[in-house]
Amino acid sequence: MKIEPDSIILSGEGSLQRQLYQALRQPLLSGLWPSGALLPSSRVLASELGLSRNTVNAALAQLVAEGYLQGQPGRGYCIITQLPDHFFQAHGFQAHAFQDSHRFSTSNNKQTVANTSIPIQPATPHKTGLLEPGVPDLAAFPYRIWQRLLQRHADRPKLGVGSDVLGYLPLRQALSLYLQQSRQVHCNEQQILITAGAQQGLYVAAMLVAARGDQVLMESPGYGRLRQALQLQDLQIEYLDASGAEGISAEALTNYHDCKALFLTPGHQYPMGGIMPLPQRLAILQWARQQGCWLVEDDYDSEFQFKHRPIASLQGLAQGEGVIFVGSFSKTMQPALRLGYLVAPVALIRRAAEIVQAIHGDVPLLTQAALADFISEGHFSRHLRKMRKLYQHKQQLAQQLAAQYLPDWRLSAMHAGLHLVLLCPETMLPDFDGPRLLQQLAAQGYAPAPLSKYQFNGEQQAGLVIGIANLSHAELERGLQLIAAFQHSS
Amino acid sequence: MKIEPDSIILSGEGSLQRQLYQALRQPLLSGLWPSGALLPSSRVLASELGLSRNTVNAALAQLVAEGYLQGQPGRGYCIITQLPDHFFQAHGFQAHAFQDSHRFSTSNNKQTVANTSIPIQPATPHKTGLLEPGVPDLAAFPYRIWQRLLQRHADRPKLGVGSDVLGYLPLRQALSLYLQQSRQVHCNEQQILITAGAQQGLYVAAMLVAARGDQVLMESPGYGRLRQALQLQDLQIEYLDASGAEGISAEALTNYHDCKALFLTPGHQYPMGGIMPLPQRLAILQWARQQGCWLVEDDYDSEFQFKHRPIASLQGLAQGEGVIFVGSFSKTMQPALRLGYLVAPVALIRRAAEIVQAIHGDVPLLTQAALADFISEGHFSRHLRKMRKLYQHKQQLAQQLAAQYLPDWRLSAMHAGLHLVLLCPETMLPDFDGPRLLQQLAAQGYAPAPLSKYQFNGEQQAGLVIGIANLSHAELERGLQLIAAFQHSS
Repeated sequence: MKIEPDSIILSGEGSLQRQLYQALRQPLLSGLWPSGALLPSSRVLASELGLSRNTVNAALAQLVAEGYLQGQPGRGYCIITQLPDHFFQAHGFQAHAFQDSHRFSTSNNKQTVANTSIPIQPATPHKTGLLEPGVPDLAAFPYRIWQRLLQRHADRPKLGVGSDVLGYLPLRQALSLYLQQSRQVHCNEQQILITAGAQQGLYVAAMLVAARGDQVLMESPGYGRLRQALQLQDLQIEYLDASGAEGISAEALTNYHDCKALFLTPGHQYPMGGIMPLPQRLAILQWARQQGCWLVEDDYDSEFQFKHRPIASLQGLAQGEGVIFVGSFSKTMQPALRLGYLVAPVALIRRAAEIVQAIHGDVPLLTQAALADFISEGHFSRHLRKMRKLYQHKQQLAQQLAAQYLPDWRLSAMHAGLHLVLLCPETMLPDFDGPRLLQQLAAQGYAPAPLSKYQFNGEQQAGLVIGIANLSHAELERGLQLIAAFQHSS
Repeated sequence: MKIEPDSIILSGEGSLQRQLYQALRQPLLSGLWPSGALLPSSRVLASELGLSRNTVNAALAQLVAEGYLQGQPGRGYCIITQLPDHFFQAHGFQAHAFQDSHRFSTSNNKQTVANTSIPIQPATPHKTGLLEPGVPDLAAFPYRIWQRLLQRHADRPKLGVGSDVLGYLPLRQALSLYLQQSRQVHCNEQQILITAGAQQGLYVAAMLVAARGDQVLMESPGYGRLRQALQLQDLQIEYLDASGAEGISAEALTNYHDCKALFLTPGHQYPMGGIMPLPQRLAILQWARQQGCWLVEDDYDSEFQFKHRPIASLQGLAQGEGVIFVGSFSKTMQPALRLGYLVAPVALIRRAAEIVQAIHGDVPLLTQAALADFISEGHFSRHLRKMRKLYQHKQQLAQQLAAQYLPDWRLSAMHAGLHLVLLCPETMLPDFDGPRLLQQLAAQGYAPAPLSKYQFNGEQQAGLVIGIANLSHAELERGLQLIAAFQHSS
């Protein structure tokens, strides 16, 4: 079979060489041109299609290189392969992790990429919802200083590649001092692993201390993404009530035996705000030691306690034994940094680093280097002091406004952190339509989280978790007014 | 019991308030002061210790807040808790993932953190080893342009928080076009997930397609970190010989049934450099379809092929079905970016995003935004064109120098990429002392990888994998001279 130059149609898009390449490749892939068929010579192709000989030869050379064509001296190019007829017939691929064991159905669609690709949408700029919890005051971040520190390191090519698997040493040194002084963490820089955020730290901690099917404990209300990380590892999760002012109770623990780990937020329970007093901490440490159960202490925003200095960490009380301590810079600096840390006994830290290498690879050095300077040159403590005052002010304001507009609602998580919990009055509960409220708020640009998002234990307390850090007085007031208006309309 | 002011000793380090806090807390934690004991009044403490009343009151308030002390009106402060005597007795914590089921031994050491902390070492600057494989030419990266693009987005607070779980939309759009045009990948932006590097992409891909205990296939010689990722998921790995010029052979696959996934590098086998021709690709696709076996295509450096344009991806040949395509910007841009991507069928991509959320959280938006501009404004293709020429030149140079200094050694991976494989001559093998060679090279600042690092299948071929991208002509020549000198001395 000889292929006629007429049957070769250029698409008009992309370079001429690419157009010719694709015009030759497609009929071949679709089976239109059989094996052994001869292409016109490059001279004929060039003159018939109005292309330069160079362009034609380059496209043909590419097809030869890819194994579609064979050059035949004096005879031109011959097609040496084609897709078997049955190639695009139905086959099943099973996606293991896909919960419903989804099986792909197969179409007989032989459209090329260009035909099936969805038209590109204009980019919709991302907008943070007002009242969204977990977001620090982004406008108060010292971008100029940060930018300067980034620039200081940005053109150092040696930062471009990996270093110690535990993370950039000067950052671990600065962090070690900070954690010892501010959180009474018992550590040195050899027990710190820099992670790409606290989420990674929690996932790795779970991997260190538990295996598929093991029982672990976490708080409810609690952190949904921790739950996801534990579920992904097929751990059997039991939930401890954490809604009280002191977090989980040591008494409740006596019901559990043979748990591999307890994940908790003693410094400031997330999201209910309980702060665990010392006797509770000691009782929990004692229980954990008796049981041989690991504690994973998530210290997610203990820097922002307003009534007193942060309470010493569980890890410090335990002198570092049997506790893995996880933290991040997402709230103290900004979420986009994606830098966190895991403090673990020396015997585990190398294994933790290996896991991070396997699931992620090196953590970028540039931000680590800038952050090391940010801490050791005093910017970090200055920023924390400033933010502590700012957030305390914003908390007071939020509480005053809540008292004014939502006098029947109870408040929780008032003494620390970047959010406030608004608990719906019992009298309102029967009629309370949470989804509709959230929908109405979203229409106005507000995105508080429903308390139900944090409840895993069948609790029914209706409420909202509102971020108070990243919006203005007027925006905060308007948000609470909207909630009040909804309450009165329903 | 009344506590005497004399027994309270300040350490002389840190703020006075902190010193007092620790001086009071330590005897309490160590059990020296029993429950119910009374502290001197704050007035007495202040005058005896020479501190201001404010300082004393702040330290006491902190200890009250933490639950160590109780304020008694008119009587001063009373100790309300102490650590139980047996608190620091031995207990066992089992670290599951620790391979030898290490059990912690416990010391009775009650030293405080400050005493046990290892003195901080001066920072040792990180230095990349010469000839280290996998590192692009870092000095050739357009830092000025990149810095400008970062700055363009750096002060946009809205970038500080998460967006679409699939990644920043403009980046996915730009990447979709690029992958379609340059790699014939069959995708649109809804099938792309931005990951924090290719390593994360490989880990997530394995999670998508296989479960604990499942059999999967990978190449040998192959990528050690892929192996780590698969081992971490307790997959049963079988190895396919990939040392030939065409990568793994489809014939070898007929020995395998019931494999969940085949991980491969068809564009440029890593590290041996085989480039899989079309008939092999089609045969592998056909085998995979018949078996219902997923293909995970690691396209780690296909951009740098010197003989012809990169061969169309397996994913494109399969019209996107049954193939997960993984790539990164570590070699085309720089490793520190930690940005990669995973292209998967729409039915899987949301699940992939959920996994990334659970193991990592959002991928930072700032670098995504800068990279989107870098691609869509043409810097990326310009940089690739420039680097392709540069690396081709460096490859030729390395091959000339190898022929000159190591004439008996065979070369592999000559037609693409940033590394070259030097295969030790058979005659030399009995006496070849690889570890000693590496040690000698390391002493001179060179860090090539031994081929054994990539061999998982009992192969015995001795050799070196050398990176040729990130060093000068003189450094490259000196490296090969050192290897030759070692050869002649042994």
